[in-house]
Amino acid sequence: MDKILRINMSGANGPELKTESLGAYAGLGGRAMTSTVVAQEVPPTCHALSAENKLVIAPGLLSGSAAAMSGRISVGCKSPLTGGIKEANSGGQPSQLLARLGYAAIILEGCPKDDTLYKVIINKDGVSIDKADDLKMLGNYDTVEKLRGTYGDKFGCISIGQAGEMKLGAATVAFTDMEGLPTRHAGRGGVGAVMGAKGIKAIIIDDAGTKMREPKDPEKFKAANKAFVAGLRQHPVTGQGLPAYGTNVLTNVINEAGGYPTFNFKQGQFDGAAKISGEALAEMENSRGGDGSATHGCHRGCVIRCSGTFYDKNGRFVTKQPEYETVWAHGGNCGIDDLDAIAELDRLDDDFGLDTIEMGATIAVAMDAGLAQFGDATAAIRLIKEVGQGTPLGRILGSGAAVTGRVFGVERVPVVKGQSMPAYDPRAVQGIGVTYATSTMGADHTAGYAVTANVLGVGGSVDPLKPQGQVELSRNLQIATTAIDATGMCLFIAFAILDQPETFQALIDLINGFTGLDMTGDDVSDLGKKILTQERTFNARAGLTAAHDRLPDYFKNEPLTPHKVTFGVTDEELDQVFNF
Amino acid sequence: MDKILRINMSGANGPELKTESLGAYAGLGGRAMTSTVVAQEVPPTCHALSAENKLVIAPGLLSGSAAAMSGRISVGCKSPLTGGIKEANSGGQPSQLLARLGYAAIILEGCPKDDTLYKVIINKDGVSIDKADDLKMLGNYDTVEKLRGTYGDKFGCISIGQAGEMKLGAATVAFTDMEGLPTRHAGRGGVGAVMGAKGIKAIIIDDAGTKMREPKDPEKFKAANKAFVAGLRQHPVTGQGLPAYGTNVLTNVINEAGGYPTFNFKQGQFDGAAKISGEALAEMENSRGGDGSATHGCHRGCVIRCSGTFYDKNGRFVTKQPEYETVWAHGGNCGIDDLDAIAELDRLDDDFGLDTIEMGATIAVAMDAGLAQFGDATAAIRLIKEVGQGTPLGRILGSGAAVTGRVFGVERVPVVKGQSMPAYDPRAVQGIGVTYATSTMGADHTAGYAVTANVLGVGGSVDPLKPQGQVELSRNLQIATTAIDATGMCLFIAFAILDQPETFQALIDLINGFTGLDMTGDDVSDLGKKILTQERTFNARAGLTAAHDRLPDYFKNEPLTPHKVTFGVTDEELDQVFNF
Repeated sequence: MDKILRINMSGANGPELKTESLGAYAGLGGRAMTSTVVAQEVPPTCHALSAENKLVIAPGLLSGSAAAMSGRISVGCKSPLTGGIKEANSGGQPSQLLARLGYAAIILEGCPKDDTLYKVIINKDGVSIDKADDLKMLGNYDTVEKLRGTYGDKFGCISIGQAGEMKLGAATVAFTDMEGLPTRHAGRGGVGAVMGAKGIKAIIIDDAGTKMREPKDPEKFKAANKAFVAGLRQHPVTGQGLPAYGTNVLTNVINEAGGYPTFNFKQGQFDGAAKISGEALAEMENSRGGDGSATHGCHRGCVIRCSGTFYDKNGRFVTKQPEYETVWAHGGNCGIDDLDAIAELDRLDDDFGLDTIEMGATIAVAMDAGLAQFGDATAAIRLIKEVGQGTPLGRILGSGAAVTGRVFGVERVPVVKGQSMPAYDPRAVQGIGVTYATSTMGADHTAGYAVTANVLGVGGSVDPLKPQGQVELSRNLQIATTAIDATGMCLFIAFAILDQPETFQALIDLINGFTGLDMTGDDVSDLGKKILTQERTFNARAGLTAAHDRLPDYFKNEPLTPHKVTFGVTDEELDQVFNF
Repeated sequence: MDKILRINMSGANGPELKTESLGAYAGLGGRAMTSTVVAQEVPPTCHALSAENKLVIAPGLLSGSAAAMSGRISVGCKSPLTGGIKEANSGGQPSQLLARLGYAAIILEGCPKDDTLYKVIINKDGVSIDKADDLKMLGNYDTVEKLRGTYGDKFGCISIGQAGEMKLGAATVAFTDMEGLPTRHAGRGGVGAVMGAKGIKAIIIDDAGTKMREPKDPEKFKAANKAFVAGLRQHPVTGQGLPAYGTNVLTNVINEAGGYPTFNFKQGQFDGAAKISGEALAEMENSRGGDGSATHGCHRGCVIRCSGTFYDKNGRFVTKQPEYETVWAHGGNCGIDDLDAIAELDRLDDDFGLDTIEMGATIAVAMDAGLAQFGDATAAIRLIKEVGQGTPLGRILGSGAAVTGRVFGVERVPVVKGQSMPAYDPRAVQGIGVTYATSTMGADHTAGYAVTANVLGVGGSVDPLKPQGQVELSRNLQIATTAIDATGMCLFIAFAILDQPETFQALIDLINGFTGLDMTGDDVSDLGKKILTQERTFNARAGLTAAHDRLPDYFKNEPLTPHKVTFGVTDEELDQVFNF
């Protein structure tokens, strides 16, 4: 990864392509790359859809190598949803392909002069850009299928659906998975809207003729990778829970803990949870037979293999195995206990290019506004279809929960910095509440997944119902996560590295073996702090303050059943999260 | 004015009425009262539609007295549109009536437990509150007419239309005028949505049996009032321009100056300006005959008399004579040059309870989004009717320009702190640009009307096309305006007091004669500074920063014709506005 591809959509004679050396960005990957470029090059007060904003797509530091789990890719920009900096990451093929082709980042900048849509084609011979008006307002599935007709079966694809073209706040950037389908998404913060504003529909990446990236110290790297994989296989979450049930293994766990947000965050347990749990999903997949009963990875080099395939009762492919967050968002949070309906919603979101978390939260707000009854799956499907059709109602919903709340006058809207909360109620899992409130990203579980020590007994144990210890827990996790997001590693490695010092050491050795550096655990922590500080600075200059590092008041005032608990971490404590 | 009426809508057994003494709020009127109560009692980070927000309605310090021009009333709250503190003020009957009844403020707090709608009845015998579900989703006109059937012809009324009930960001609070019609509005910042969130449809005020408020020093007061009125009659703007043509006298003036925002702020002059000017309007009214040819005041005690009546070509009443800002918003900014259409839009806005400035700006953004063609009056009327009907599209539009821009992915949205800019392009009238950027209220011309020295040659002369001197101009005007907004005086007195030292002195004497105080001009200025500081502090705690004291980037990048000028006041200069 020795170059950056810069595409200026404001060029006088159309888009201008430039391949440049890394310069000051050398040695950065994933979130370290995206956040540094955005912090350096984007005016914090610019409009997120303007020519001044940039969309940065960056493979992780270890992507394209033989390192296990290293296939995550980061997408960064100023977020149209939060108004702050954004890094959303995704699995899928493109990270490994781009890295093998040598690209440490693609930077989309400027704005096209008219509404022409473009596609970018990248392979070992170089880069080209073509008009792609034939793809206008196609979903991600049709887009990829149509491109296969021209470019064959081998390429990986980065694309936007209708939501991105409409520049909606919940629009994602889609990445094709191992099966070549657009099921993996950089979901959060409206990154797809920024790609839409750049007029880029798809980026087609073919790594034919390239080789795996070579480590500086092959022996050290190989040994470390082996120990790393062994550690992942040994830990109960990464070695058993996730491979067996996928992320949806969490439904019963979080519901049992009383932290499962139900009916738009009105209660902490859902009567229908068992019906949509990972266990129920596995049983359904097994009973429907075929390869639906096996799990697999979302990218080359995955050894956790928490993904899967969802077929309907007639054996027709619907979507990838829905993730826990999706099952919760479209399920329990909306009072829906029907896995087939949830899978259909997942498919629609992937096709239109919509964040499943944001959309589930939004539909629940719409239900509170009286647009549908809680539990009405048919209505939820109809509402999501409106988004794809671009009706006024669809555009409202596709703009996310905060806008939907404003338009329909709903006060109870579970957002921080305009972004919807994921599948853990911050009252019953107070550590994640600290992360929601303070993350540079808006409400985001992956930014500091305190569910670990709060509920799962991973990386220590902190009482989830009490404020004590949550700030320190969230702080440490936010630092570690930010560093992991720079490596291209899947965040799920955190379970093993938090609990197993030797697995953490193996990760450090893996990085050092690959880069030839001599980093310590403290160095990794310092990297995390440095990126976070950069992001916080950008956000402050964009106008985000301590007042934005807060949960909505009702989490402090309305006790959550069954534990009858409110969010107890004080404002003063929240303001200490970034004192590191 | 020795008491406050507090209505708690959260009472266990329904709304609770309480009349209390002024306590720490003694001596405050208008904006001084509303901003102090909001700053003292409303948590800055609360949701604007929540029980924690309060709606404060306060007559001016001199309201209810014989002082000329003293009939303005202030409405304050945390704004659902800007997220900051809000004071919107209005003419009409209620200020004088409430003041004569002795109420220095009505404070609506809490939230009703269900969607029952209420009306409040205030007269010399006291206060009562009744259910008013029969008024649900009625426009302001039907609401007032229906109430006349019950309460007679004498009362003044404060009400919300459909927009307030739907809690939309552009919703106003309506006040009946001298003719008893709901044509005067506290328009800006969505104050009507907060009244809607409190579940109050109307406040009926009958001052029968009360007397005018007595000054402490009747002789001094009487002499000062005489000198004050003479000063207003003597100044060309308040004595001639406004009485002859109403505020719409400005259309030709601002268009001539090249600062008339046209086609959603794309150019500074409108070809159709003459057709919708004050001169054209007066000619039309004269040709249609009846009392439409005479101007009159919007409240008891007005001697400027800039209001009027608009009849259609068949002599049927349509609305009050549309104000300059309305004619611009629904006219030039949308490319519409048809006064009959503009009057119909004005009537619809008044009836639904919508801010004409916000709605005109919003329709222009919607036109940029492709929802209608610029100049298409029929489409504009259809779009505004959607708001009253509460369709999804209508709710988007009724949420204002910022939300409409987000939902339709439009970058060029002329807002500051989420509130639409009024009828002066900040590039060609740079002093008003400073006010738009820095006002505690969001983009608001009345907060510091630098058009005076920039264009009208009132209160000095500062080149409108250059940044020099604009910060000082806006600062001084913001301070003076804030103080005037506390008195209950119509802001139009500023023309005379800025140019005529003896009229300014008459105003001071009027205040002193009434209150028995011995204030100087410096004391008045200190009052303005004190209120502004309080508002700035609230906003800072609510999360508004220097980054929010900025115009959208395109005003700095896109030159405005005909002067080919961009907004040149630097960020550093803007940050000096409140260094007083």
